[in-house]
Amino acid sequence: MAVLSKIAVNGDRLIESINRLATIGRLPEGSIRRLAFTPEDLQARNLVRRWMEEAGMSVHTDAVGNIVGRYGVHPPDAPALATGSHIDTVPSGGCYDGTLGVLAGLEVVRTLREQQIKLRHPLEVIVFTDEESSMIGSRGMAGTVNELKAISVADQLDKVGGDWDQMGTAKRDRSQIAAFVELHVEQGGILETKHKEIGVVQGVVGMYRYKITLEGRANHAGTTPMDMRQDALIAAAQIVLMVQQMALNAPGDPVATVGMLTVSPNAANIVPGEVQLTVDMRDLSPDTLNQMAKELYERVEAIATATNTPFQITPILQVAPTPATENIQRAIEQTAQELGLSYCALPSRAGHDAMEIGRITDMGMIFVPSQGGVSHSGDEYTTPEQCIQGANALLHTLLLLDEQYI
Amino acid sequence: MAVLSKIAVNGDRLIESINRLATIGRLPEGSIRRLAFTPEDLQARNLVRRWMEEAGMSVHTDAVGNIVGRYGVHPPDAPALATGSHIDTVPSGGCYDGTLGVLAGLEVVRTLREQQIKLRHPLEVIVFTDEESSMIGSRGMAGTVNELKAISVADQLDKVGGDWDQMGTAKRDRSQIAAFVELHVEQGGILETKHKEIGVVQGVVGMYRYKITLEGRANHAGTTPMDMRQDALIAAAQIVLMVQQMALNAPGDPVATVGMLTVSPNAANIVPGEVQLTVDMRDLSPDTLNQMAKELYERVEAIATATNTPFQITPILQVAPTPATENIQRAIEQTAQELGLSYCALPSRAGHDAMEIGRITDMGMIFVPSQGGVSHSGDEYTTPEQCIQGANALLHTLLLLDEQYI
Repeated sequence: MAVLSKIAVNGDRLIESINRLATIGRLPEGSIRRLAFTPEDLQARNLVRRWMEEAGMSVHTDAVGNIVGRYGVHPPDAPALATGSHIDTVPSGGCYDGTLGVLAGLEVVRTLREQQIKLRHPLEVIVFTDEESSMIGSRGMAGTVNELKAISVADQLDKVGGDWDQMGTAKRDRSQIAAFVELHVEQGGILETKHKEIGVVQGVVGMYRYKITLEGRANHAGTTPMDMRQDALIAAAQIVLMVQQMALNAPGDPVATVGMLTVSPNAANIVPGEVQLTVDMRDLSPDTLNQMAKELYERVEAIATATNTPFQITPILQVAPTPATENIQRAIEQTAQELGLSYCALPSRAGHDAMEIGRITDMGMIFVPSQGGVSHSGDEYTTPEQCIQGANALLHTLLLLDEQYI
Repeated sequence: MAVLSKIAVNGDRLIESINRLATIGRLPEGSIRRLAFTPEDLQARNLVRRWMEEAGMSVHTDAVGNIVGRYGVHPPDAPALATGSHIDTVPSGGCYDGTLGVLAGLEVVRTLREQQIKLRHPLEVIVFTDEESSMIGSRGMAGTVNELKAISVADQLDKVGGDWDQMGTAKRDRSQIAAFVELHVEQGGILETKHKEIGVVQGVVGMYRYKITLEGRANHAGTTPMDMRQDALIAAAQIVLMVQQMALNAPGDPVATVGMLTVSPNAANIVPGEVQLTVDMRDLSPDTLNQMAKELYERVEAIATATNTPFQITPILQVAPTPATENIQRAIEQTAQELGLSYCALPSRAGHDAMEIGRITDMGMIFVPSQGGVSHSGDEYTTPEQCIQGANALLHTLLLLDEQYI
């Protein structure tokens, strides 16, 4: 058996697997289209499943279609360490988002097997179903499926070996999964900007989203004097700038965005009568999020009053933050130090399967840089070296956790 | 012959004519749809033409389809006084916009004839073609048709007795029309707010219109920190508020409006990558308009620089103001005083046929109140009393001008 601190994944094999999977669903212009439940997704799932079996794992598919590969000879009820991510993509995505986490997990198993390293825990590599849309896979495993919202995929589950009516059997808990670590590309530009190789994720941010409707009065843009207007866009513009200022002034690094704004009737010669807009706010701290939500209501009301523009504000999404477990963050830091990789702590501001699994057990995430912060695009890129660094960080983090957990 | 200062139009007959014309193109829900060149427009034109003939006018149609009714026995080359407006409507309009001016002109002629009053000038009542869209009628008469922009109506002109190829023959000048006075509903709320019965129009405002494109960078609204964004909507919101402030701070009462604003990609979870918006600025003073235009360019550039958002600004419309002739404004004031009607001066901030005719000869406009400032709507309303007051003001203004002009 090799000296644990010296072992490393087979980088060439990892990159080769990534490149091979990227041939499935590749569009002529280079991006990848592998939407969940489509033939491309099924083909990719079959390939990964075969690779898992070839790596000596026992593989099964649960009721929400998650592929669970389990490595090691342990009693069936032994609590596992788990890793994984997803292999479905957005309509025009890249070949790292999700895929890196699954294939790095597979490569960790291949390495452990080659080096004949026996862990104290079973190690599971999980391919979660439909991360990019319904998140039915990780939600099913966490028991957090909103059946009303997920009903659109009910008929799709049998394509991937799942069964909507048996969804409850996919639910797992801490006694089955002691800890879960997901490796993922950052999908943002912080690591690149800070010149760091490894991101120690502090947690997945919570997200509060609102729809605001402002009811002014549509009127002739020529004949209506400035002081007789109820211009819904004036109120909206103030809200757009207020939302930005609120995020800049709040403690920590929350983000807040007005991403959607539509004007009605939207004609050059008519004073805007109605504006609809969305406010999306994300942060790691539930306190900050709740404070911002309170402030949003107060300030929108003040703006609406000052501009004489009646308003409605409706919450349309409220996802609580999922903090990464402290000891896993420490294990990732220690690993980075031992491997000589530069690192920094940062939140994940995108949703991930780990966000859901973090609701039932200890969770951590490792980020590697995304070139230019670009993601959900054919231009998504992480260098082979960075992918391999991430896989080695995953390997050694799991080795550390295997010691730490009972 | 009656004492001139005592004569008045037949108010019942005027209102009856308005109500009769309103039956043509009336939609089930009550508004009027009488788009230029449609069967409804043709039917209305035929009715007005018949009324003109019944009132003793000689009627002809010029090359851009204007119906010109001429009253009085004078040499063909005698310079006329003229009044009139239009009878076409927006897709869902009311029964006063345009129509009042035409039918009040007709009622003035009916009254002059009944009272056997002979004017020194021929009096023309003109129905201008397609005011609501191409303004081909008044532009053809003023010689200001932009043939490229008007080409869409070229094939329509023969429906109303016009002839695109003979457009030049419709052009008239000061030697043919000594002065033109148009009565119109205000289409705004100033008279109502000030409790005035008659508006003495100072002129038709000029209109400068711009399209501005802001090029930010679309990005993930979760993973892109606030300080790494190029949010086109932040720049746009600043422009919206700056445009409002610029109008409020400028001398006089200019108006400025961002009426159209579209965000791309316009999704709640994406930082806005591009915004297109329009700026519409109107004022009576060319100096104020030019100063505002200069300021707009400077401030948009400053905002774009501060927000790191490249921009383009393109003028899409530039219409010079048309001042109302001083002596006609004074004649309207004197008339209002003599009739015991309250009045105030105000600009016309909407375009009118008088704007074009004012480019070739002396021009004035009389406004009567619009209830709630509403226009271009089935809810447009001016009371019968106000319509009759306007027609009497038109009658006596024309009588005064008949004395003043050689």
